[in-house]
Amino acid sequence: MSKDNSSKYRLTYFNMKSLGEPSRWILEYTGTPYVDDRIPSDMIAWYTQRKAEFGSTVGQVPVLHETGKRELSQSGVISRYLASQNGLVGDTPWDNARIDEVISLLFDLYDAWRKATVLETDAARKTESMSGVIRPKFKIYYEKFSKILEEEKGDFVLGSKLTHADFWLAHFTQFWGTPLKGERPTLPPNFLDLSDSDMLIGLVDEFPLLKKHMETVTSIPQIKDWLSRRPSTVL
Amino acid sequence: MSKDNSSKYRLTYFNMKSLGEPSRWILEYTGTPYVDDRIPSDMIAWYTQRKAEFGSTVGQVPVLHETGKRELSQSGVISRYLASQNGLVGDTPWDNARIDEVISLLFDLYDAWRKATVLETDAARKTESMSGVIRPKFKIYYEKFSKILEEEKGDFVLGSKLTHADFWLAHFTQFWGTPLKGERPTLPPNFLDLSDSDMLIGLVDEFPLLKKHMETVTSIPQIKDWLSRRPSTVL
Repeated sequence: MSKDNSSKYRLTYFNMKSLGEPSRWILEYTGTPYVDDRIPSDMIAWYTQRKAEFGSTVGQVPVLHETGKRELSQSGVISRYLASQNGLVGDTPWDNARIDEVISLLFDLYDAWRKATVLETDAARKTESMSGVIRPKFKIYYEKFSKILEEEKGDFVLGSKLTHADFWLAHFTQFWGTPLKGERPTLPPNFLDLSDSDMLIGLVDEFPLLKKHMETVTSIPQIKDWLSRRPSTVL
Repeated sequence: MSKDNSSKYRLTYFNMKSLGEPSRWILEYTGTPYVDDRIPSDMIAWYTQRKAEFGSTVGQVPVLHETGKRELSQSGVISRYLASQNGLVGDTPWDNARIDEVISLLFDLYDAWRKATVLETDAARKTESMSGVIRPKFKIYYEKFSKILEEEKGDFVLGSKLTHADFWLAHFTQFWGTPLKGERPTLPPNFLDLSDSDMLIGLVDEFPLLKKHMETVTSIPQIKDWLSRRPSTVL
């Protein structure tokens, strides 16, 4: 699809999957033309130069630029906004609460994981918190997600209806389950390099419903196509 | 209003305002009967005994119990769900994105503040991060909220329409602006006690539109009444 500057949408994020990816999946799935605007993941340059450019928000990405509207920030907000316009949300407040809960829990999990890994500068503390805090936390959350899928008796978070919560869930279970390969972010000198031990590789195998969900969603033709051609990045 | 066990809703949270308070404001504003279920803020007991009771979620509160439905967790999700049923959200995806963005930004701010204060066990590090990180961050976010109120040319986040984003915004600007008075949480022995220097007292005065917004929302009769009779707690 068109990626030129005449697109109605421009999604600005780092050259990473992470928190920007679920919104990209919505745009790809719906065939919406957009500019996939990627800031080089040079964290030194970001903090010293680029961050100030995003002063119209609060200096954070992702940011969605839509022609004729002001910038919209916050990953979950952008994703829900795009999903709401494309039939990828629920039909009732309760259905929407259930999908929002999954997304909100995933965001909490990502936030805890990021602080314990990417942002942790002490190697011993990283090892300790990965085994003592992060891995147990992931098991509790993965169990919760499995229970939701079991209760819904369908392929998706909302039973038989595909929503953006499925994009969040499948993206992140795949993300944490995949060995690191591709472009690495440039981290400041005091930061630790990333390795596969920072991920939760193999964990999803302990949760068959969650694994099946990940396989179902990543097999949707538009998503499968996007996965085959998106930039290769470790985060 | 009725607070007996026959109410359709029970909102379980600590004996704190913090992240549970915006949902209480919705219930109070709309005159919805609910049980205001408060867990004693004894953090030692919580981590060793009570947390496991919330295993049906992921061991976090607030949790909303609605008769006939499963538990619903995550503060922003509960608030949006209650607001959606009571006309306290927007009418279009874009309107909802704008109010969700404010709530999401406030949640980020609360999370950063909580980690730098309530969860920080080193006094020197707390002092340093309050002046070096938290205060500058608050100024950026308060500026952003002011800019939104200015653009909307009305009393509320969405112009002339009251939404739950106004409850989040007014609650937190009041919360951070108020000297600590009332019941304190019991913190583990290695935690630092809380003092007024952990708050942002006086900061809202530098943002006249934000201050006016706080005054407008807290003057709504049902909210004013609730503020006069809610339990007095420092957090």
